[in-house]
Amino acid sequence: MSAAMLDPVLAHIDAHIDQTTEHLFSLLRIPSISTDPAYGQDCDKAADWLVEDLKSIGFDASKRATPGHPMVIAHAGSEGPHVLFYGHYDVQPVDPLDLWDRSPFEPTLEQGDLGPVIRARGASDDKGQLMTFIEACRAWKAVHGTLPGKISLFFEGEEESGSPSLVPFMRENAKELTADVAMICDTGLFGDDTPGIVSRLRGLLGEELTITGPSKDLHSGMYGGPAMNPARVLAKIIAALHDDQGRITVPGFYDGVPELPPEIAAQWEGLNFDQEGFLGQVDLSDLAGEQGRSALEMIWSRPTCEVNGIWSGYTGAGFKTVLPSQAHAKISFRLVGQQDPHVIRENFRAMVRALLPADCSAAFKSHGASAGSEMSIDNPAFDAARAALSDEWPNPAAFVGCGGSIPIAGHFKSILGMDAMLIGFARDNDAIHSPNEKYDLRSFHKGIRSWARILHRLYG
Amino acid sequence: MSAAMLDPVLAHIDAHIDQTTEHLFSLLRIPSISTDPAYGQDCDKAADWLVEDLKSIGFDASKRATPGHPMVIAHAGSEGPHVLFYGHYDVQPVDPLDLWDRSPFEPTLEQGDLGPVIRARGASDDKGQLMTFIEACRAWKAVHGTLPGKISLFFEGEEESGSPSLVPFMRENAKELTADVAMICDTGLFGDDTPGIVSRLRGLLGEELTITGPSKDLHSGMYGGPAMNPARVLAKIIAALHDDQGRITVPGFYDGVPELPPEIAAQWEGLNFDQEGFLGQVDLSDLAGEQGRSALEMIWSRPTCEVNGIWSGYTGAGFKTVLPSQAHAKISFRLVGQQDPHVIRENFRAMVRALLPADCSAAFKSHGASAGSEMSIDNPAFDAARAALSDEWPNPAAFVGCGGSIPIAGHFKSILGMDAMLIGFARDNDAIHSPNEKYDLRSFHKGIRSWARILHRLYG
Repeated sequence: MSAAMLDPVLAHIDAHIDQTTEHLFSLLRIPSISTDPAYGQDCDKAADWLVEDLKSIGFDASKRATPGHPMVIAHAGSEGPHVLFYGHYDVQPVDPLDLWDRSPFEPTLEQGDLGPVIRARGASDDKGQLMTFIEACRAWKAVHGTLPGKISLFFEGEEESGSPSLVPFMRENAKELTADVAMICDTGLFGDDTPGIVSRLRGLLGEELTITGPSKDLHSGMYGGPAMNPARVLAKIIAALHDDQGRITVPGFYDGVPELPPEIAAQWEGLNFDQEGFLGQVDLSDLAGEQGRSALEMIWSRPTCEVNGIWSGYTGAGFKTVLPSQAHAKISFRLVGQQDPHVIRENFRAMVRALLPADCSAAFKSHGASAGSEMSIDNPAFDAARAALSDEWPNPAAFVGCGGSIPIAGHFKSILGMDAMLIGFARDNDAIHSPNEKYDLRSFHKGIRSWARILHRLYG
Repeated sequence: MSAAMLDPVLAHIDAHIDQTTEHLFSLLRIPSISTDPAYGQDCDKAADWLVEDLKSIGFDASKRATPGHPMVIAHAGSEGPHVLFYGHYDVQPVDPLDLWDRSPFEPTLEQGDLGPVIRARGASDDKGQLMTFIEACRAWKAVHGTLPGKISLFFEGEEESGSPSLVPFMRENAKELTADVAMICDTGLFGDDTPGIVSRLRGLLGEELTITGPSKDLHSGMYGGPAMNPARVLAKIIAALHDDQGRITVPGFYDGVPELPPEIAAQWEGLNFDQEGFLGQVDLSDLAGEQGRSALEMIWSRPTCEVNGIWSGYTGAGFKTVLPSQAHAKISFRLVGQQDPHVIRENFRAMVRALLPADCSAAFKSHGASAGSEMSIDNPAFDAARAALSDEWPNPAAFVGCGGSIPIAGHFKSILGMDAMLIGFARDNDAIHSPNEKYDLRSFHKGIRSWARILHRLYG
């Protein structure tokens, strides 16, 4: 791995960053909003743009039809580890349009807190991020005359609308899509100077609960007292889901929850996570949750149970003396390690039923059940990526967790049997899904350089 | 009190019931919906109709302007106890109109489960009921040539829209409106064969509670665990409001709650209230609430705490992994005896604040605070009315309670210092406030006869 292979690539990237940015603008100008049928042709156009662009740097690229928006698949090379890179070319809707300072599909460079930012819908999520990888390939090709190794690309156009075609497409094309490792560029930096490689994702179990007491809404003056109030029953159930140490009381809940390996604990310790700032930015000062755990540990490695919604009775203006017939809650569990979502679902439902008083019944609706996943970071690509990122950024990269759930990573594991590495350069203030989305030019530029370094570590 | 005075009046009522019903129809044809400004003129027209009708039987009647719909005031006589009779001439809106079998303001006689029923908006609530009293006066006048004694009438036209003009008007006209006792015809029979005189009303304290945790809605994947979830805090608070015996835990809550006098307890026992049927009609089988109390005791003589509404987070279709910033509840207390609503409000708020974890705050909104009231049934009018009703109906009348709150009765007590007797002939299936409202012809006919008997007991 000689610096002679890498340095001219980095120099090329630096020398061409203006052209590269202008090139990204032409993709950003295509309003590829996947949820709105009015933009169907634009999604198609974005897919075509990518196919042409990939062909121009030597990929065997093609658009593949699905019942929804098309996939873009590209392959090149035969040497070294086989890497599959994933991104999505569709973007979020733009309304409310009047909150945008300028048109969402007329990208511009503006001044941001860390230098220039690229302002447009999709700049960060995910066009700007996916182009960091393509631009690294382009620079490599320009300098060395060939792409670095066995690389496939896989772009979808339905990520912002629930990816209905994704799983069937992956199943049908499993052989073509399976590689040694997947790389996904759709996440953020851990800190402005600290890249992270997401190597553990929490699973998500969603339950909707309806408690029914009396068969219709009653007058609380008439039936208040004699009749059981399902809103009170629901409150009792929710209150019973945690003990006074913040632990979840569903029977067997912690079966399969591992303690953090000491080396990962040490890495996280080293990140000097600003717990006070993290809470302070939403005006909290106290760490809730399981006692004796740090915030990072809670978010990345501990399971949770949260109430995402409750409703019952009269919720409008003024007052109505109703004794409601039903009370509802949406409750979700984030899962880690070997926790089995199906077992937890059954145990949760049994616990709720056991807490019901006479005359109340419970009905349940499932809203997804996915287990947590942890990548096998002994795949050498993980260490290569970590070293490469540590070379590019002021602070070393860490294997971090992700509190949320990223379905694509789970699909790569469960359908194609491969681990996924999530590396991204977005910042928390990128306003993805919101008006005035942006991507820092620094993220874009150092992102391209990061991928060049990773390619060099893998193939150089 | 000779039967010679009463019998011809009853005979006159029986002989003229068809004309009397037709006369009620002409009032029912006026669409005096008070909440809808489009019907303002109709409210006025209904008031005029009453003024003319009362004048025609010898009352000194007049319409009195208010900032809203007018009041109707009438006086007659100078002998005997001074009775003030109250009713309201406005009616509820009629939508959804397509659920009516025929036009709500074209009254008809139809067959019901206990004989003919008068079908129209306002038939039961309250035009049919208020006319029972006027028709008794009319029959008395027709038979005896004069009204029976010192009677005033007081009708408002805003009862179905919150009575905004009522209290100011009562204050301004206190002297004119004050009598020895008020009689209100806006309630129901205890059973189809058993009249009741409502002599105790529960008060109502309404509170709206907002718990705030983080300063904005958060992603539950990011903040679930470290951040306190206000929906969980709200659930804990609601769960803490009752102990496992069904008693309310707000400090000092039972101060001023009296035990039932044995003679009233015996009367209620004698009513043979069908507790099973009462619960069964809303598909309940178990008596919730304070252990060791009967349903009637709970509804009429015990205080309650009910959750009338809760809401927090995402309540739409599907799922959203939000950790809400706020959680809300509408909570009401029914009060009896000497319970002080203002003290209970403060104690409730203090209890909530004491249950808050760090980082959560509570805000409160008041939705009314009225104490319970118990009429002094030693006023001889109460015994007279009870005896008269017992003469008319198959079963003896009882002094009953009312689980709901009837503000007008409280106003008579607090503003004019007089007790109110609530006597009414509505049935539970009258569909007041609903499509296809009706009033049994039997209720109307026996209601008129009941008032004639009461007038006879008071003045005969």
